Amino acid sequence: MAMDIRDINSMNYESFLDVFGNVVEKCPVIVAAIWSRCPFLSVSDMESSIAEFIDSLPQSGKEGILRCHPDLAGRDLLSGKVTAESQGEQRQAGLASLSPGEMERMKQLNSHYKNKFGFPFVICARMSNKAQIFQELSVRVNNPPSQELLKGIEEVKKICHLRIQAIVSTSTQPTKL
Amino acid sequence: MAMDIRDINSMNYESFLDVFGNVVEKCPVIVAAIWSRCPFLSVSDMESSIAEFIDSLPQSGKEGILRCHPDLAGRDLLSGKVTAESQGEQRQAGLASLSPGEMERMKQLNSHYKNKFGFPFVICARMSNKAQIFQELSVRVNNPPSQELLKGIEEVKKICHLRIQAIVSTSTQPTKL
Repeated sequence: MAMDIRDINSMNYESFLDVFGNVVEKCPVIVAAIWSRCPFLSVSDMESSIAEFIDSLPQSGKEGILRCHPDLAGRDLLSGKVTAESQGEQRQAGLASLSPGEMERMKQLNSHYKNKFGFPFVICARMSNKAQIFQELSVRVNNPPSQELLKGIEEVKKICHLRIQAIVSTSTQPTKL
Repeated sequence: MAMDIRDINSMNYESFLDVFGNVVEKCPVIVAAIWSRCPFLSVSDMESSIAEFIDSLPQSGKEGILRCHPDLAGRDLLSGKVTAESQGEQRQAGLASLSPGEMERMKQLNSHYKNKFGFPFVICARMSNKAQIFQELSVRVNNPPSQELLKGIEEVKKICHLRIQAIVSTSTQPTKL
């Protein structure tokens, strides 16, 4: 049974965090913050609240959000240390089964990107395949930092949107705490 | 060997997050954000950066920080689901070995507090014993919400200070990534 906005609005903050805590990777505080705006008019109103909260942060806060993301096809994916959500997204895009040559290329690109920007390359993997991700990374690494920060945050919002959609379309109503 | 500010300033953001990621409970994004201000003049300058970042957040963001904290002596402590830092702090204050009557009293007070404020009671457990925590909770639950939000955030900063002190005084220099 799909979850609707009435189900969401009836959650206390603990249930809300249990269900939506990782729609922005490793940033439960963002979801915890926007619970203050509950009740929401709709799921997309809830999503807008998250986007507005992110936009209201200073530059350092936006950089911080990106820094909470794992390297794509990085050691945390290989060692099983990424969140379940990220693992599913990276696997689907084919990043869990790179050839040794592709692994090396990804590692070099990620490293170059992080050295330049001070945060990792973030892309909505569910909307891309492996070839597109390599292509994007190769192009985006040449962007100026201010542009790349905005681009990364746009991708965070796409990831958030798809994670919320996956939760509301498949979940049964959560048990009240 | 203690860690000094040069060791800290030489960390990339990944090492920095590995080491300091939970000095604000379940809010690695705050620590990830203030890495943007690196190099720091001193450990206390780093700590001030965290406090300033927290103070710069809107009210909902401060409420979000509090909501990332577990209930004191709550089910997450009993089931071993709290962070290592919080577990150590709660154990030291005697909250892991409450009598059934004390457990029930704590549960009622926590529940009353959360229903009133929409966030959990947060106190720097390392600076208190069990009796003082019960006393504070009984008193603070009667505060007006705006005062209690500020009080909770003050406690978050005290917890953060002690966690940072524990890290820098006992750690050896971390391995560079």
